[in-house]
Amino acid sequence: MAEVDVFENIMKRNEEQAEKNKKIIGRALCINIMSSPGAGKTTILERTVERLKKKYKIAVIEGDIATSNDANRIKKFKVPVYQIKTENYGGGCHLDADMVNTALKKINAHRKKYDIIIIENVGNLICPADFSLGEDRKVVVLSVTEGEDKPLKYPLMFQIADAMLLNKIDLVPHLDFNQEELFKNIKKINSKLSLIRLSASHGTYMENWEALLDRWIKEKKWRKKPSH
Amino acid sequence: MAEVDVFENIMKRNEEQAEKNKKIIGRALCINIMSSPGAGKTTILERTVERLKKKYKIAVIEGDIATSNDANRIKKFKVPVYQIKTENYGGGCHLDADMVNTALKKINAHRKKYDIIIIENVGNLICPADFSLGEDRKVVVLSVTEGEDKPLKYPLMFQIADAMLLNKIDLVPHLDFNQEELFKNIKKINSKLSLIRLSASHGTYMENWEALLDRWIKEKKWRKKPSH
Repeated sequence: MAEVDVFENIMKRNEEQAEKNKKIIGRALCINIMSSPGAGKTTILERTVERLKKKYKIAVIEGDIATSNDANRIKKFKVPVYQIKTENYGGGCHLDADMVNTALKKINAHRKKYDIIIIENVGNLICPADFSLGEDRKVVVLSVTEGEDKPLKYPLMFQIADAMLLNKIDLVPHLDFNQEELFKNIKKINSKLSLIRLSASHGTYMENWEALLDRWIKEKKWRKKPSH
Repeated sequence: MAEVDVFENIMKRNEEQAEKNKKIIGRALCINIMSSPGAGKTTILERTVERLKKKYKIAVIEGDIATSNDANRIKKFKVPVYQIKTENYGGGCHLDADMVNTALKKINAHRKKYDIIIIENVGNLICPADFSLGEDRKVVVLSVTEGEDKPLKYPLMFQIADAMLLNKIDLVPHLDFNQEELFKNIKKINSKLSLIRLSASHGTYMENWEALLDRWIKEKKWRKKPSH
């Protein structure tokens, strides 16, 4: 088997498993959050779970190469959480649909009891963009410290995302950061990307992110409603 | 051919090509700088080239998925620079020894005219750690905004590195950042890692990084000196 066939097989198998995951996920909204290491995914997740857990039934799937640090940070909110460690799968640089399938079983997603399932991917702005997990929406987090050129340098991630959270806006006064330049670069790559500026650590503008999730949850339920 | 054989073949071929690169590099010190996107590799490189270019003959190899932005930033210092765009090789998430071989030819490294060749890898804290390029030293850049837990979550990168540059220390007063915790985590992963704190954008402590490069250049020349 040639190398190119091997890679095509991996992608095909992943797509098939992602379709199976969609059936398990059912009426829940499933989102896949991706970013560079340290852009603030877990802090955004902490603040999101804190805000939404009285309104919705939430579960969280954490992805990392090593450690259960992120799952431990979410556990204190008393929502179901499962930590995928990709080192157990050979040290993968991204989550794949197989790993998420295992996690969905662990959180009993087949019982259809959740309104929202949030997956935090491995910190990597490249490889996770290639692997569908069966999610409804893809979200990319970019922190203001990473610079305005990232959408041009890592185009696929920004092309496939439905929304971008621009995090750590509290640091803007201390940086040489040009937001207009960033938004211009994003427009070149994906003019339909929903943009939300926020600071998870300071709790700033988290309500705009919450409103987007509310809308996505409503849209999914409406689509999934039986017609009779 | 099974999948595992395909990956083993890729790694084996890369090692062979890396050995060929070492011969082309010869007496020059070659360093491979790696980090997450936006940790500040290119700014460190700008300040480094600016400081060293009168003292040493320098060439730079830039790696990105797309754009020549980084090469353009280095060109203003009038040193030879070549931009590898991995999208031309299928959108790779890391540099490999083949790509660097092409770049070494483009900068005429076989003429043995350089003291130092600096390679800036694709922004990714995971995949580049697996691929030797024929370099003498591996350097990981971590910015203080990325958090103290990164060495534990991305262990391979910190295990294989010879030095870590902790960048953006000017932002520490605005962050909830615990340097002792970071250094404790690094010690668990790689107790021999050389640690240098700096702020490339503010020019702080760049002399410590320059001193390490001076030492590495001397060591390499000494090792490569003919004995007769």
